[in-house]
Amino acid sequence: MSLKETYDTDNIFARIIKGEIPSVKIHEDDEVLSFMDAFPQTRGHTLVIPKKAQATNLLTVDPDVLSMLIQRTQMIAKAIDKALAPDGIRIAQFNGAPAGQSVFHIHFHIIPVWEGGAMKPHADPASGMADPKALEEIAAEIRAAL
Amino acid sequence: MSLKETYDTDNIFARIIKGEIPSVKIHEDDEVLSFMDAFPQTRGHTLVIPKKAQATNLLTVDPDVLSMLIQRTQMIAKAIDKALAPDGIRIAQFNGAPAGQSVFHIHFHIIPVWEGGAMKPHADPASGMADPKALEEIAAEIRAAL
Repeated sequence: MSLKETYDTDNIFARIIKGEIPSVKIHEDDEVLSFMDAFPQTRGHTLVIPKKAQATNLLTVDPDVLSMLIQRTQMIAKAIDKALAPDGIRIAQFNGAPAGQSVFHIHFHIIPVWEGGAMKPHADPASGMADPKALEEIAAEIRAAL
Repeated sequence: MSLKETYDTDNIFARIIKGEIPSVKIHEDDEVLSFMDAFPQTRGHTLVIPKKAQATNLLTVDPDVLSMLIQRTQMIAKAIDKALAPDGIRIAQFNGAPAGQSVFHIHFHIIPVWEGGAMKPHADPASGMADPKALEEIAAEIRAAL
């Protein structure tokens, strides 16, 4: 285990789960939460996270939790495909800061892409946070396709 | 379903599974094959594919197959972490050519990264194919850590 980050129970995703920080939700049950990335790389950029597992990354997460996460990722990706009709969808899961991980609570990215469309850098504060109202409109479209 | 590619039973991964094209294998059972990417973006770049499922991408693959794929991806990522001690590991799964998919048989990429280390472009013929002997040496290290 060479990836160094430890689990911080006050990381931003843990605080979203606890309801201490707002998020624009697409789907939620006891185990998994799917919500809009506040720094979207493209329109519809969604994150999928476990709610109970205090796992930093892929190396430490319980395999059963991992199965739930990827099956939920598939469900949301299908809804994004139906709602937003992208030309492609990228799934990404980063482990360790040098790999691009910025929040140390395991998460999958669902990033729809369009031919010729630009993709913003990952978790780039320079791009600014998305307008929550704009995110909510996109989330409503995706939720309607679930 | 807006992603357009159909499953071609003679795609390069199908031919690897059938043994018609050589590959440098890390692990194989009845369901899942893990092997070295012939155009590695970094040292240790590995692919994980289903052997029976004729699924182009995440939108069409059976959820049970998907679970097997991600759990195997985790197993191999742990071995890569142990064997190669990267600073981070990227997991990527591309759907549709505009998302970067180049072989239309669902696959997960495991891409170890090192701080300050370069990462070659994805599936870039200009980078040239890796030397199979060099790949075999890395694969042996990873296999020993399984």
